Amino acid sequence: MTTRTDQRPAVPMHGVVSERSTLIGRDSRPDRRGRLTAFLLAFQALFLGLFAGFVRYGPPAGPGIAAAGPTIDHYYPMFQDVHVMVFVGFGFLMTFLKMYGYGSVGFNMLVAAFVLQWAMLMRGFLYMEDNTINLDISSLLTADFSAAAVLISYGAVLGKTTPVQLVVMAFLEIAFLTVNEWIGTVQFKAQDIGGSMFVHVFGAYFGLTVARMLYRPEVSDSAKEGANYHSDLFSMIGTVFLWMYWPSFNSALAVADGRYRAVINTYLSLAASAVITFAISSAVDKDGKVNMVHVQNATLAGGVAVGTTADMMIQPWGALLIGTAAGTLSTMGFTYVQPFLARHKLHDTCGVNNLHGMPGLLAGVAGAVACRLKLCDLGERSARDQAEYQMAALFVTLGVAVLGGAVTGIILQLPVWDRLQAEELFDDRVYWEVPDDEYDDSEPEPRAQSHPRAPSVIQDAE
Amino acid sequence: MTTRTDQRPAVPMHGVVSERSTLIGRDSRPDRRGRLTAFLLAFQALFLGLFAGFVRYGPPAGPGIAAAGPTIDHYYPMFQDVHVMVFVGFGFLMTFLKMYGYGSVGFNMLVAAFVLQWAMLMRGFLYMEDNTINLDISSLLTADFSAAAVLISYGAVLGKTTPVQLVVMAFLEIAFLTVNEWIGTVQFKAQDIGGSMFVHVFGAYFGLTVARMLYRPEVSDSAKEGANYHSDLFSMIGTVFLWMYWPSFNSALAVADGRYRAVINTYLSLAASAVITFAISSAVDKDGKVNMVHVQNATLAGGVAVGTTADMMIQPWGALLIGTAAGTLSTMGFTYVQPFLARHKLHDTCGVNNLHGMPGLLAGVAGAVACRLKLCDLGERSARDQAEYQMAALFVTLGVAVLGGAVTGIILQLPVWDRLQAEELFDDRVYWEVPDDEYDDSEPEPRAQSHPRAPSVIQDAE
Amino acid sequence: MTTRTDQRPAVPMHGVVSERSTLIGRDSRPDRRGRLTAFLLAFQALFLGLFAGFVRYGPPAGPGIAAAGPTIDHYYPMFQDVHVMVFVGFGFLMTFLKMYGYGSVGFNMLVAAFVLQWAMLMRGFLYMEDNTINLDISSLLTADFSAAAVLISYGAVLGKTTPVQLVVMAFLEIAFLTVNEWIGTVQFKAQDIGGSMFVHVFGAYFGLTVARMLYRPEVSDSAKEGANYHSDLFSMIGTVFLWMYWPSFNSALAVADGRYRAVINTYLSLAASAVITFAISSAVDKDGKVNMVHVQNATLAGGVAVGTTADMMIQPWGALLIGTAAGTLSTMGFTYVQPFLARHKLHDTCGVNNLHGMPGLLAGVAGAVACRLKLCDLGERSARDQAEYQMAALFVTLGVAVLGGAVTGIILQLPVWDRLQAEELFDDRVYWEVPDDEYDDSEPEPRAQSHPRAPSVIQDAE
Repeated sequence: MTTRTDQRPAVPMHGVVSERSTLIGRDSRPDRRGRLTAFLLAFQALFLGLFAGFVRYGPPAGPGIAAAGPTIDHYYPMFQDVHVMVFVGFGFLMTFLKMYGYGSVGFNMLVAAFVLQWAMLMRGFLYMEDNTINLDISSLLTADFSAAAVLISYGAVLGKTTPVQLVVMAFLEIAFLTVNEWIGTVQFKAQDIGGSMFVHVFGAYFGLTVARMLYRPEVSDSAKEGANYHSDLFSMIGTVFLWMYWPSFNSALAVADGRYRAVINTYLSLAASAVITFAISSAVDKDGKVNMVHVQNATLAGGVAVGTTADMMIQPWGALLIGTAAGTLSTMGFTYVQPFLARHKLHDTCGVNNLHGMPGLLAGVAGAVACRLKLCDLGERSARDQAEYQMAALFVTLGVAVLGGAVTGIILQLPVWDRLQAEELFDDRVYWEVPDDEYDDSEPEPRAQSHPRAPSVIQDAE
Repeated sequence: MTTRTDQRPAVPMHGVVSERSTLIGRDSRPDRRGRLTAFLLAFQALFLGLFAGFVRYGPPAGPGIAAAGPTIDHYYPMFQDVHVMVFVGFGFLMTFLKMYGYGSVGFNMLVAAFVLQWAMLMRGFLYMEDNTINLDISSLLTADFSAAAVLISYGAVLGKTTPVQLVVMAFLEIAFLTVNEWIGTVQFKAQDIGGSMFVHVFGAYFGLTVARMLYRPEVSDSAKEGANYHSDLFSMIGTVFLWMYWPSFNSALAVADGRYRAVINTYLSLAASAVITFAISSAVDKDGKVNMVHVQNATLAGGVAVGTTADMMIQPWGALLIGTAAGTLSTMGFTYVQPFLARHKLHDTCGVNNLHGMPGLLAGVAGAVACRLKLCDLGERSARDQAEYQMAALFVTLGVAVLGGAVTGIILQLPVWDRLQAEELFDDRVYWEVPDDEYDDSEPEPRAQSHPRAPSVIQDAE
Repeated sequence: MTTRTDQRPAVPMHGVVSERSTLIGRDSRPDRRGRLTAFLLAFQALFLGLFAGFVRYGPPAGPGIAAAGPTIDHYYPMFQDVHVMVFVGFGFLMTFLKMYGYGSVGFNMLVAAFVLQWAMLMRGFLYMEDNTINLDISSLLTADFSAAAVLISYGAVLGKTTPVQLVVMAFLEIAFLTVNEWIGTVQFKAQDIGGSMFVHVFGAYFGLTVARMLYRPEVSDSAKEGANYHSDLFSMIGTVFLWMYWPSFNSALAVADGRYRAVINTYLSLAASAVITFAISSAVDKDGKVNMVHVQNATLAGGVAVGTTADMMIQPWGALLIGTAAGTLSTMGFTYVQPFLARHKLHDTCGVNNLHGMPGLLAGVAGAVACRLKLCDLGERSARDQAEYQMAALFVTLGVAVLGGAVTGIILQLPVWDRLQAEELFDDRVYWEVPDDEYDDSEPEPRAQSHPRAPSVIQDAE
């Protein structure tokens, strides 16, 4: 069978030399075979061993014990919403790349499934009693939160790493993330109900630091780094599920009336950021048009930016104000900050700085301001003290993320793992068996040929 | 970079003259720039101000108060299902147009996010006490219901308005809708648990009236008004989520055992309408084939048609009967009524008359009949009285929808907002930055050229 | 209007002769018209009559009765997750075929909506008291479970049957399935909380037996049986929703702390099978790449394989072990078993033997082993007895499935229903009105011609 592609002249384009490339031929990279398998098997064996040694059902999941601990009916619906955000939301949001759809939703699943297990262990070891890690529904929820952070980092390096590098990054990131969160919540007693600092800021700046470390000039010059009409629609599946379920993300771990407020505040902040995104996107476009990249991302910034204050007494208008600011900040970020960073060797594939980074910083500052205004539960602290601890948690998070990202970036450049060659960037064919029609879902020849009457039927119908 | 399109002769088609059009060039429509931005910023500022002045957390979301009011655990899962229907369901259902996918799911999000805020305010002002609007989870639910009505209207005018017109339409529609619902539920005490009258009938005939007012002959003669293979599959995402979660839509606000019945009745009615849709669709096709338009829409008619009676004692077979009738009516509507209306200057892009209009009327009549048969909760009224009030609510809804739609249609024709030119109908490029490959997600040249070895690799694999 | 297809030479391909085919022309198959309609109307009338005669609201859905029976708040969120698995999960999972997307998601909906009604009746008759079938939320849940089994069978015959055959198959399968489940759960008191035996094993081997009976050589030689880039992404929508909501499938019917364990165990087993699938998929590929077919399916095998033991005391590491084994088994199945079966006249379109069959057998054996180790609730039985009954249920399920599939296969070959001709396999155009551009969603000519300025605009933008 011949395909349409082989009838075209092979003209060099975008500076890629036309010598026979080594992209897909296995002969030129025999070393890659088996490496992903070996790493995954080793890690999975490690997880299995550690689970066998240390992890048991917590009291509410044990037999014959009156439920002590979080009940499943109370948490499960919101847990499932978060689960959808992690696997459908992040997975499809990243399918906007026209030639990296398999890698987006597929490696998203791999990384998340890997992290769920590893994050349970890491968090379990940090908080364990009697040498036993007890699982309950909150263990599942917090593992999903940790996965979200790693997937945010994945967004920064999307299309630029091998899956082996991704898995190693995830392994290291969870260690830094868990320790940072322990500092912030246990030591500083900082409040961050929706994880805007401990998940979004951390994941964004960890990933951006890794992206900076792995930078090479070719990433800014690939014809493959772009969307097409249908890849943008696949991406909107991710956007819309993230948008809808974000109130669950910000309220799942909240208690009592704080949970109620977290739902209302997040709902309102998202509504404001969605409307404002359209306004600003049209304003910054030279033709006054709306940019799909903004709609896919900046509409969600309200969810990030209200994450720290979601359960506080910020009032509905406070939530709208935060959402308005977040939508503006995020859209501006895509328009002005991301190109600036790209010129300075920081290539951010998904624009996580605009969706998770800057809105997360806004969230952290808003949390400190809200505590200073006595809108949060202060416990025995003064408002000034709590506000200072909030800011301290934000700065420590930034510091640990950048430090951890730098260490990880150095490790990822070791020759022991795979690295992508320049022409392999943003291309599913490197690690996926792709159908013969390669990204072309419209090939009509086979049908036309095997059903030669088709044309006349079509003509009849007109 | 050249694209495939510019190698083809520019032959006039469908009567469109081949003179250089003004579709995308910004020079010919400088006035459009900034207008969407200005309107959205003004409205968002208005909402922010009104929220600051009037809206507070209701008792269950306030601090330190024992929960008085609807609890979040009881409502939240069904609320989220409705939320998915509004954003994924309506958004993707409308992506069937092959060149209007961004506008379908994107402007759906814009309009819904706009309406959520405005509907809270409008409803709040109508029912407020002590000059304060108190938010709880039911405020979010009813705001989503209001958004559904506006999105139904959007379906009637899909591809034929500018986003500015859409926002203005949404603003006006919510005012009429809220007043109509107040008449129906407070004054008439009519029952309509799933909003078949107050949401579906209202939204459909409001939108159809607007569509009639904005009618121009070109809307019936556009080569762009059609589906392609993948746009139909995107649309099915919307269909299936609407179908699955409709039991939540019809039962979210019901109480006690009525809620239980609403789930069962809606589930059964939808099952019947889905089966019947395939039967009738095949029957009315000249080749006996099934029509995707029917499957995307008429399968859902059972959910609309059982909306008023969902919590009544209609018995399971009653629900099946209603679903059977609705599937038949809706499929017939697409086949015979919609073309008839189109010939009489009423162009209904999504066929909302067939999915929401006529099945909604059926729901209203079924509600009156059920009350006459004492199958609804009559309170202190006689069965005849309640049945008459049910019919009165249905007629008032029709009247307010048509009146409101007419007023809105007149206002939308004012030159102060944008209007689409004939060649801009059903075309995302007017308001969206569309990738260079313009709707073509199969462009293989760039890859073939930048990876000249690809063809040989493909050959190797065969 | 001419299409691109009619400008190409009609070259015979894949051995299909170029004589004028009869695929779409209605003249050559006048008998098909009306048959689907007649069958569906007859069945729906039957259902309506039986519901009117026998089905009523159960106590918790009746008026004025204190809720006796399963409460809706407890079951509804998990029920809806299962509902999503049935309609979105199975529906989109099967859209991987590039020319059978309508049939996949559309007929999935038809079959499921048909089965929901019929399964309620069948199960109701088997368990009825006082000649009345009482519906409650568990009736809806178990109807969805039954639909899942039929849809698994659909996966084995996907693209190879007419919708009339599908409906007849569904009708017969539900009878066998309900009786088998009654034997297993009532007579043998076997435990199978996630239906791995009674749903997955039964559905898989019933469907495979039907596929074997309907075998013809042409099914293994169709150019249409394959995926393209976007059909694979649509399929991933199904995969991811199945993966996320599987904990609900396995725990919805569990009670007390068993429900809690079912959530945790399924979550862990799925995580392990997802990671392992990537490892094994890369290992068995000649270039070390990952295969999308494996990711779409084998990642889910952990959910099937832990289904019988999900609520037992297998401990978290036991769940990981089962998931690891299942992912390996399933990926190996796709690589080695499926081609072997295909060479022996058993063509399994979706590979249900790999996802549901063999992992289901693993689940059944794991259940027996767990009971033998006293990890399940033994009641008054000895561990050995319960283990033997578990194995007995598994073998009886296999036997009834194969027997029922054989009987159904014979009946489906009766000339009274439609059969597909060889060139109609895996092709939506046989039973669906497909857009003129036939599977081609990239046709740029109409736009290019009606908007002749488009090319220059595109050039301007570069």
